[in-house]
Amino acid sequence: MRIGVLGGGQLGRMLGEAGVPLGHTFVFLEPAEECPAASTGEWIRAPFGDAAALEILASRTEIVTYEFENVPVGAVETIAARRPVLPSATSLATAQDRLAEKRLFAGLGIPTPAFEPVDCAEDLAAAAERIGLPAVLKTRRMGYDGRGQQVLRERSELAAAFAALGEQPLLLEAFVPFDRELSVVAARARGGEIAFYPPIENLHRGGILRLSRAPAPAMSAALETQARAHAGKILATLEHVGVLALETFQVGDRLLANEIAPRVHNSGHWTIEGARTGQFENHLRAITGVPLGSSDARGHSAMVNLIGELPDLAALAAIPGAYPHLYGKRPRPGRKLGHVTLCADSPALLEPRLEALLQLVPEASGVSSRA
Amino acid sequence: MRIGVLGGGQLGRMLGEAGVPLGHTFVFLEPAEECPAASTGEWIRAPFGDAAALEILASRTEIVTYEFENVPVGAVETIAARRPVLPSATSLATAQDRLAEKRLFAGLGIPTPAFEPVDCAEDLAAAAERIGLPAVLKTRRMGYDGRGQQVLRERSELAAAFAALGEQPLLLEAFVPFDRELSVVAARARGGEIAFYPPIENLHRGGILRLSRAPAPAMSAALETQARAHAGKILATLEHVGVLALETFQVGDRLLANEIAPRVHNSGHWTIEGARTGQFENHLRAITGVPLGSSDARGHSAMVNLIGELPDLAALAAIPGAYPHLYGKRPRPGRKLGHVTLCADSPALLEPRLEALLQLVPEASGVSSRA
Repeated sequence: MRIGVLGGGQLGRMLGEAGVPLGHTFVFLEPAEECPAASTGEWIRAPFGDAAALEILASRTEIVTYEFENVPVGAVETIAARRPVLPSATSLATAQDRLAEKRLFAGLGIPTPAFEPVDCAEDLAAAAERIGLPAVLKTRRMGYDGRGQQVLRERSELAAAFAALGEQPLLLEAFVPFDRELSVVAARARGGEIAFYPPIENLHRGGILRLSRAPAPAMSAALETQARAHAGKILATLEHVGVLALETFQVGDRLLANEIAPRVHNSGHWTIEGARTGQFENHLRAITGVPLGSSDARGHSAMVNLIGELPDLAALAAIPGAYPHLYGKRPRPGRKLGHVTLCADSPALLEPRLEALLQLVPEASGVSSRA
Repeated sequence: MRIGVLGGGQLGRMLGEAGVPLGHTFVFLEPAEECPAASTGEWIRAPFGDAAALEILASRTEIVTYEFENVPVGAVETIAARRPVLPSATSLATAQDRLAEKRLFAGLGIPTPAFEPVDCAEDLAAAAERIGLPAVLKTRRMGYDGRGQQVLRERSELAAAFAALGEQPLLLEAFVPFDRELSVVAARARGGEIAFYPPIENLHRGGILRLSRAPAPAMSAALETQARAHAGKILATLEHVGVLALETFQVGDRLLANEIAPRVHNSGHWTIEGARTGQFENHLRAITGVPLGSSDARGHSAMVNLIGELPDLAALAAIPGAYPHLYGKRPRPGRKLGHVTLCADSPALLEPRLEALLQLVPEASGVSSRA
């Protein structure tokens, strides 16, 4: 099929990499000066709100998806009048608003950190009173990779934090001393079938994902059940079609839902080699109406992001089971330039390879130790 | 790296599919009106002998390879004066000439069917006398997918066969009543290391590969040793860099070398999902000087070519472990439009899935039964 994609970053690029072998062709709408996805399709460079560009995208494609969750909902609605857009504007609008997300979780009975909307300084004071400190003040919209967040530990910090972020609607959330972050990546087909990947353990630093392990080590059956149940309820309620990621905090034997991404997700990159069907292929299968492929893991995988600068790729490639992925982006501090997936038949084989890999990736060193 | 490719068919396309994730960019030189590889790179449409086009290709790339063995050796030599071309013109020239191939095998002590060059009708009569009938008369050059070959069973057929093919240099080969065809696909790095994929069992019909199974069933250790030894000698002697395929006939417990392809090979397509590192990725690792990845199989695979028309892809995708690959080519009888790789953890799981797949692929039905 001819598939349009709103956004042309690395997620679009990997959709293209998965889709070209399936015979699909791609048109990407990407306003930035670089479009990593352009290696696998046509690039329309225009703002997401550009009506003429949206019309061109719709006219050249049969179905449209998005790879960036800050695409304006209005752009999706404009295209949806002409072509099917999957996942729908509902999934996008929900994921764009932390309050809508949290209310969705709460409405479905999914545990989530205590939260309160904050629209003025008085709201913040009252919310801090009810939730207690420490707490996290977050913008409701446009947050990603840890931006737009501030941890509040003392009441004296409230005014400055509100001044820094308060130009826009906010949310105060309880600070959760979590054991670890786990994400659930799953694909839902048009007919409602869901393929759940095994839960993934994620380590962040500076708000950016550094390392994922999958299947997540030390998963009890109870945790596994919660992970699938929470993600399944969300997918079904949104009538989501395509891949969705649910980020959770593990606290003891409970999972608290943190946020959703209505798209393929960085913590699911390991699935390209580490699962029977990668998340990018399953997203395309879902939106094009083809039965989903198996989401079972093939052995044990780790995924390390390459951030800011690229390591020596020949040295990387010499590590058994290492699969480098480069995004074709110019290096810049803090920028995701690529990732490496490591696959092994057992955790005992995986960990020493991971240590070797992390020595080549300076930005990631120190992230391997687990709580 | 910026990689130039002589030829832009499905093999070029799959090189691009493997190379884009590694951060490579591609320029394909392809004279035909369709260029399946253009989905993953730039397409220069010009004849292989076009000096200006070769100059453009060389100027836009850092290294050049080929995906079609009937590229003129002169074109490779022209580029080699400007840029490294890997594999070299030697590999290409040898593979283009059945007599050179056979002499290479014989010189290395690799068993091969008896052969004689045929340049005139008298040569043919004498060769038929020495080799005996049945025998196969083949053009020395430009043969592929069974074209340019004729089986001779009676002396009375010699004159007509020579008249049909004799405008060009020929070769008469003994007709070998083989048990099966096995191929060996292997990648050789710049430094001489070789990664051998497990031997592959191939079934042809009408001269076109229909079905491959890998690792080939019922391989004795002795056969496996011969397969690696023969391919290894050829790779080392040619100082080949990149992937090479050796096609052999199994006759009892012996392998007779039939021909080589100095490139990625149809019988190696299963490696994309069925091996730890696919042949396309290992070809790129070899020519770009990156250590080779493991060529170990992941479970058991079968590969079915999609020829002439495409089956129902949703039905295909519903078969567990099925990975369709489409080449973006217009359907035409006899044309390779795509392939499907089937993966399973055991032959017992693989075979019923293969039966289900073959029912969806009419052109391939009947090819599954093994001698």
